[in-house]
Amino acid sequence: MKKQTRRTFVASAVTLGAGAAASAMPSMKKKKKVLVHHVFFWLKNPNSKEDLAKLLAGLQTLRKIETIKEIHIGVPASTEKRDVVDNSYHASELMFFDDLAGQKTYQDHPIHQKFIADCSMLWDKVVVYDSIDAEG
Amino acid sequence: MKKQTRRTFVASAVTLGAGAAASAMPSMKKKKKVLVHHVFFWLKNPNSKEDLAKLLAGLQTLRKIETIKEIHIGVPASTEKRDVVDNSYHASELMFFDDLAGQKTYQDHPIHQKFIADCSMLWDKVVVYDSIDAEG
Repeated sequence: MKKQTRRTFVASAVTLGAGAAASAMPSMKKKKKVLVHHVFFWLKNPNSKEDLAKLLAGLQTLRKIETIKEIHIGVPASTEKRDVVDNSYHASELMFFDDLAGQKTYQDHPIHQKFIADCSMLWDKVVVYDSIDAEG
Repeated sequence: MKKQTRRTFVASAVTLGAGAAASAMPSMKKKKKVLVHHVFFWLKNPNSKEDLAKLLAGLQTLRKIETIKEIHIGVPASTEKRDVVDNSYHASELMFFDDLAGQKTYQDHPIHQKFIADCSMLWDKVVVYDSIDAEG
């Protein structure tokens, strides 16, 4: 193997690695505007661990809806207490969608409708924030 | 270059590529519990495009704070109007942190403090939600 050939070969191998990495790494591509859907739930029975567990289990079923690009099912974090921090909710769902159509598909999806049918008696209040990336 | 040597060399090159990819791809590793910090801002002058632009520009400066793992600076999305949807805010910031310490570093960071000093006169109300992933 001549030196030049070897260099070319190595360059190809490294490029292959980088190419495979880039295709699996959407964060390295130019980002599209993400639709952020964040929902906060207040339980009817705020002290019922059972109701919270039911609600969290119900939220977990939503993961299967294919237009959800990323999902975080949360509970209040133990960050510093400040007047501006609302930690009175009991559970939250944060979802990313590619666009309005993706979010609409989610809203109408049978899994989402089943979640509402199964769990809506658990909550007293729901607040939803839908945001779209401002940049770009 | 002997055949064996060449094989070894190529294997090393490909491994190097894969290693670099894995280290840049947290989504392929087992996920840690993410700390989600979501802030909603209501402007003092809700109809001032200039004030909104100033606030959004101020929020953009926060990107440089190194403990922020992901950031979305948003405005209300044009999703379906529903009673539960609060689209009365004017701007939002959504940030992911690895842990409480990362969020604390952000709160105390000079860039964040400068943002508050430069922009807090623009807003009338702020609501913060801090969540941590509920799943194990």
